[in-house]
Amino acid sequence: EHEEEILRGIKTQKGNPSSSGRHRIEVAKLLELKAQLGGDDGKQTFVLKTAKGTRDYNPKQMAIREKVFNTIVSCFKRHGAETIDTPVFELKETLTGKYGEDSKLIYDLKDQGGELLSLRYDLTVPFARYLAMNKITNIKRYHIAKVYRRDNPAMTRGRYREFYQCDFDIAGQYDPMIPDAECLKIVYEILSELDLGDFHIKVNDRRILDGMFAVCGVPDEKFRTICSTVDKLDKMLWEDVKNEMVKEKGLTEEAADQIGEYVSMQGGMDLAERLLHDPKLSQSKQACAGLTDMKQLFSYLQLFQITDKVVFDLSLARGLDYYTGVIYEAVLCQTLQAPTPAPAEQNGAVSGEEGGVSVGSVAGGGRYDGLVGMFDPKGRKVPCVGVSIGIERIFSIMEQKAELSAEKVRTTETQVLVASAQKNLLEERLRLTAELWNAGIKAELLYKKNPKLLTQLQHCEETGIPLVAILGEQELKDGVVKVRNVATREEVRKASQSKHELNITLLKTMCFMMLHE
Amino acid sequence: EHEEEILRGIKTQKGNPSSSGRHRIEVAKLLELKAQLGGDDGKQTFVLKTAKGTRDYNPKQMAIREKVFNTIVSCFKRHGAETIDTPVFELKETLTGKYGEDSKLIYDLKDQGGELLSLRYDLTVPFARYLAMNKITNIKRYHIAKVYRRDNPAMTRGRYREFYQCDFDIAGQYDPMIPDAECLKIVYEILSELDLGDFHIKVNDRRILDGMFAVCGVPDEKFRTICSTVDKLDKMLWEDVKNEMVKEKGLTEEAADQIGEYVSMQGGMDLAERLLHDPKLSQSKQACAGLTDMKQLFSYLQLFQITDKVVFDLSLARGLDYYTGVIYEAVLCQTLQAPTPAPAEQNGAVSGEEGGVSVGSVAGGGRYDGLVGMFDPKGRKVPCVGVSIGIERIFSIMEQKAELSAEKVRTTETQVLVASAQKNLLEERLRLTAELWNAGIKAELLYKKNPKLLTQLQHCEETGIPLVAILGEQELKDGVVKVRNVATREEVRKASQSKHELNITLLKTMCFMMLHE
Repeated sequence: EHEEEILRGIKTQKGNPSSSGRHRIEVAKLLELKAQLGGDDGKQTFVLKTAKGTRDYNPKQMAIREKVFNTIVSCFKRHGAETIDTPVFELKETLTGKYGEDSKLIYDLKDQGGELLSLRYDLTVPFARYLAMNKITNIKRYHIAKVYRRDNPAMTRGRYREFYQCDFDIAGQYDPMIPDAECLKIVYEILSELDLGDFHIKVNDRRILDGMFAVCGVPDEKFRTICSTVDKLDKMLWEDVKNEMVKEKGLTEEAADQIGEYVSMQGGMDLAERLLHDPKLSQSKQACAGLTDMKQLFSYLQLFQITDKVVFDLSLARGLDYYTGVIYEAVLCQTLQAPTPAPAEQNGAVSGEEGGVSVGSVAGGGRYDGLVGMFDPKGRKVPCVGVSIGIERIFSIMEQKAELSAEKVRTTETQVLVASAQKNLLEERLRLTAELWNAGIKAELLYKKNPKLLTQLQHCEETGIPLVAILGEQELKDGVVKVRNVATREEVRKASQSKHELNITLLKTMCFMMLHE
Repeated sequence: EHEEEILRGIKTQKGNPSSSGRHRIEVAKLLELKAQLGGDDGKQTFVLKTAKGTRDYNPKQMAIREKVFNTIVSCFKRHGAETIDTPVFELKETLTGKYGEDSKLIYDLKDQGGELLSLRYDLTVPFARYLAMNKITNIKRYHIAKVYRRDNPAMTRGRYREFYQCDFDIAGQYDPMIPDAECLKIVYEILSELDLGDFHIKVNDRRILDGMFAVCGVPDEKFRTICSTVDKLDKMLWEDVKNEMVKEKGLTEEAADQIGEYVSMQGGMDLAERLLHDPKLSQSKQACAGLTDMKQLFSYLQLFQITDKVVFDLSLARGLDYYTGVIYEAVLCQTLQAPTPAPAEQNGAVSGEEGGVSVGSVAGGGRYDGLVGMFDPKGRKVPCVGVSIGIERIFSIMEQKAELSAEKVRTTETQVLVASAQKNLLEERLRLTAELWNAGIKAELLYKKNPKLLTQLQHCEETGIPLVAILGEQELKDGVVKVRNVATREEVRKASQSKHELNITLLKTMCFMMLHE
């Protein structure tokens, strides 16, 4: 602040009309000096970093990100989904009361007059707001966008404060379990296509969990907190989970043990069938409704031929409050080595929906039939079911795979470099490059008047450009085009129809042939 | 707040173990009631809106957005650009001192402990920060992302507080005017391909402007503010601009008149040549450097064959402080009717870089050789030149065009609806749909056990699905597939190789044939 005043002072004191623009140069020089010397306290003035818990994507990471998004979006489109987008911030009150304890992780904007705003925490609440606001009762949509959580970052494990969510949801009153089954099919397709190694998808139902809690003697008001504890089973031993239930949350040991029996159960349709006849659990209407739907769901999953990867797992609880029916979570079977967390991050508390729920969790979701109604003035409900792909974790895995792979990730798609073998051919290179662009060919040239041929060939090798069109005095005189395959060094020379003019159709054909042979 | 406490009270007081989950239903009911009745003051509690100056994109708008982005990204890729992404917020100090007076329009985040953050105001400053932070001296990159300005919104004219920027920049020390010419070529290609009607691109140079101010007797410290006034010439009469210079900014009438002569000049390479011999202007070294480069630039534009749309215009000034050389702006020639602004917006002050600079401005940019150096601890400079496509205005125009067009915008890409003519064929429909998905065909089915055939055909017509595969008892028995073209009602029935099993290859072939005939 102080220095800026000084600079402003200098700026306005100076005033030599013949030294036009000099003041700007002076200011720039002073700014440089300031940056070099640092502030009054001797430290560097500029902190060159991104905000805590965030990262830039460099071109290589962007190339991987584009590939992953293409796979996912293709799948969503194959299933007939539309897409929408919502603003990065919402009215603060739109987010209030939707995330329970996690609300403390919401980023608020500064009150600069006008409305109070917060950055979106997920894409589900904005989706529900959108449906209620536009009175939409039926939609199948995907939404890929960044969300924001002031969580403890663990960036080596793909947990950031700014991260992508990649959501697919089906809203509407339909016959039971059909859209729910499609969500699971989508997870199956995406994880298979991304080739991330073996995975399985756990499914459960909030009604089965609630019924289980009821018959085990958990008081109603402790359902949600006990549910949170059960949710930790994928990263804590049963003993520790039981301890938390009994000692921290005041459950009786008997109730905890009964829960322990149920949550150890895993299976398929058979388990749902068996539990429907469980003397205790079958006393809960809710549990029975959930179990009947679970059977129905598995019958559809059989038609989709994806039951090999789906497990009915009574320990699956999911963190968020708003689920009302089926819930699911996809987990990688750890064929890829996870990176060792940095020491500073090892103490980071694991929380939140996306980041560190489980070691290998890469997708999750469920049914939430009450959320849209919370936004509708008349409380009209729109049943919804959806899935969120844990894209940041997938990026991390794909980046690791790219590191380990011998194949180089290209960050551009350039097909031809227009080069010259002699001096003074910049104009010819510019003309030819423009013709290639106009013909839809991805082309580049070096921005130098007289670049060396070696430098131009090196540029091709560094960036993976497969072809180089080489211009020389002789070729121009003869009216021929010379195209070289950079990898094989094979060259093609062909006469153009008209002398002294490069035939673009011919060149295009040559490029096409050489790229596809 | 008060009501929430009441709800919490109810939640914890209740405790009937047999009514498992009932408390959640009770809470939901109370929330509904609350929403219906409104708050204590009788008004509705939930305000269902997006933040001021922002909008949702519905599926139709997204379809248009995707099309526009595809055109633009294809062009950037054709020119060999990589892409990067940066976080939506930066350290507050990263943005400080970069935007002059416009800094008041920056959105700050609330201080919730930790770093002070602000939402990005453009993509150029984050790009410069990225280059300095990673010590990158050469890159050709594009970046498409949203930026944030607490400006007076004028949404019918495409001016929002959250809006896309679509930037292409070339950083590096190169021979003069080559990358600058490519930026203009890119603007030319994109505006031609988007088919927005006739346009022209104005070019000027900050050094020519500064030289002009100097020789006209403008004091150094008034360069920037007079430059801002000149920038208004595209929406104000010269008389009013002169008035502002003389009465508000204290310039002599003589100086203003001399400026008035220069800024009325427009031309091409000939004008640059003529001004190099202008007795007054040629006394400024800066102006001469700018004019010599302008000639060079036009010679390259001739090679690119784009001089038909490029005008050297001495009235072009551009708003931002950081330009140091060539500047340009593309303007539509108003072939499309602009929507009438809503009365509430007519008084909105016109300011900012993107939004309302000029009635038809759709792209702009220039050279900024000093910005990266402001971030480098040693002040090392990285010369940059770039262009920003005014994508929001383009969206508005494309949306208008879509409204006026007879052709319906499709929001999904579904190729086939799997339908049934009789009851009890849900399982068959699910099985066939899954097979189509697995074969890469975009397919849908209605999520009903027994939808009417008419409902299913209506869904095709409403959403533009071109084909419907109709299942019936007879077809299943005969082992045939029936595919109907929804528009022509033409039907194809073909026997499958094996009875009682739908042949997916055959179906795929049929779909392909019917879609491409």
